[in-house]
Amino acid sequence: MRWMSHPPFQVEQLAIVGVGLIGGSIAAAARSRQLAKRILGYGRNPSRLEAACKLGVIDDFGTEPSALKNADLVVICTPVDQIARDVQMALGAIPETALVTDAGSVKGAIVDSVFQNAPRSVQYVPAHPLAGSHLTGFEHSTPTLYVNRMCVITPTSQNRKEDVAAIHQFWRGLGMRTCEMSAEEHDRILALTSHLPHLAAAVVASMVEEPMLEFAAGGYRDTTRVAAGDPGLWTAIFRENRSQMIEAIDRMMRSIGEFRNALATDDTSAMKEFLSSAQRKRERYRDQGQSGE
Amino acid sequence: MRWMSHPPFQVEQLAIVGVGLIGGSIAAAARSRQLAKRILGYGRNPSRLEAACKLGVIDDFGTEPSALKNADLVVICTPVDQIARDVQMALGAIPETALVTDAGSVKGAIVDSVFQNAPRSVQYVPAHPLAGSHLTGFEHSTPTLYVNRMCVITPTSQNRKEDVAAIHQFWRGLGMRTCEMSAEEHDRILALTSHLPHLAAAVVASMVEEPMLEFAAGGYRDTTRVAAGDPGLWTAIFRENRSQMIEAIDRMMRSIGEFRNALATDDTSAMKEFLSSAQRKRERYRDQGQSGE
Repeated sequence: MRWMSHPPFQVEQLAIVGVGLIGGSIAAAARSRQLAKRILGYGRNPSRLEAACKLGVIDDFGTEPSALKNADLVVICTPVDQIARDVQMALGAIPETALVTDAGSVKGAIVDSVFQNAPRSVQYVPAHPLAGSHLTGFEHSTPTLYVNRMCVITPTSQNRKEDVAAIHQFWRGLGMRTCEMSAEEHDRILALTSHLPHLAAAVVASMVEEPMLEFAAGGYRDTTRVAAGDPGLWTAIFRENRSQMIEAIDRMMRSIGEFRNALATDDTSAMKEFLSSAQRKRERYRDQGQSGE
Repeated sequence: MRWMSHPPFQVEQLAIVGVGLIGGSIAAAARSRQLAKRILGYGRNPSRLEAACKLGVIDDFGTEPSALKNADLVVICTPVDQIARDVQMALGAIPETALVTDAGSVKGAIVDSVFQNAPRSVQYVPAHPLAGSHLTGFEHSTPTLYVNRMCVITPTSQNRKEDVAAIHQFWRGLGMRTCEMSAEEHDRILALTSHLPHLAAAVVASMVEEPMLEFAAGGYRDTTRVAAGDPGLWTAIFRENRSQMIEAIDRMMRSIGEFRNALATDDTSAMKEFLSSAQRKRERYRDQGQSGE
């Protein structure tokens, strides 16, 4: 791989597999920060990829694995249930000096599948850039989507140190902060910080029928916002993170059950204590200044 | 009561009991729309009320019921667990021609308490203006808080038609839309559109410990936002709307349980159907254009 020996990170050819909002925004950020000399888009739909070329999101595109034969770095940006397959496809197509990373919001199942099955899995360094949008399609790409956001890198013991360092450099080059943890820890944390909030939003949204919407105010609006997210993508996320998600759901149901019990028995101090604890935690988030609030 | 015979609604003296964000915003809107010639603030804390006078939110203030003796309309803006008591206080102090309304987000328990206990309860027309803010205090008052928002009026069979019509005129005079329903229906709907979203937000917030906050993104931020609300106020709301809230919690737990089951048994189509239904409902809300999204 033709890495620059020091930051700033730069490669000859960056390939993006799955040129949607995520892939397109990575391409846009890589271009504006000059992380790659050429950016190749890879996907199934030539007319969409051609449109992305015309818009200047990518320089060129391919729909067959052989298109990746000169890539230095491949970033897999497909839905989580396709990532393991696409990582393996890329590993089979790229030079031995190249690397693969991804943007999947679940890690354990993907990492297990790739490292158990793929011959050259050592060239894959898993990652999850924590940013997104309810918008879809490369037309909404923005080079600033990742600025100051966190990217979690979840290498395995098989990965080479220098490859992991290079992948840190890549995501940092897009303007992100990076950190490392195991895929399992990532999935346990994200179940609570992302996947469970999505389920809660969907459950609340599903309970409010259309005639009631006139009586919804700010609490409904914010709490349910992410329920507008793509059902297919989220079904895949929940399935890929099944065991951590079930544990999180069970904890949530216990917590709701305890509150219900406090309400039914008029245990005012238990109710207030619970709401105060939630308030304190939420205020710490705001105070960290990540929320833009 | 010295109503103008036709809209625009105007009274000589409007009294606001509880001059916080809600009461202050009603005062500010009433002033800017010339609904009252004088606005009186009522509360327990003279120094706060004096500060509200100096800021021009109210013209004068009182801390004893006798201060309300010349009021034409009293709006009770105290926390929901104090409203029934304050309505009764006001009913005992005002002229027989005056009216009382309120801004409480729960109606059944308050209406029952007032109409069972108070001699002049017929002068009380219950209401709930659907707007609010996570901010508190009259310093954050704004005359636009209620513009184009819905106000639900929940009269009883004892209320006089002309009084109910006058209260519609008052809330409309602040820039609101109004509608009428029973207190019970109001509480059933608001349990789903407001109180349950708050509980869900608090439950999700309570599960994310501080070290994890770095890995929270937009889904956590929005879904938990209202969990920053005042624990005392919300404990009171849950208690006042206990039976509807317990029913809503039980429905929510069944819904979560069904999703958990679909996830555990890998029933992909059930998961996707559930998320699609939630998405459709949420998109209808956005399409109604109330959300500002």
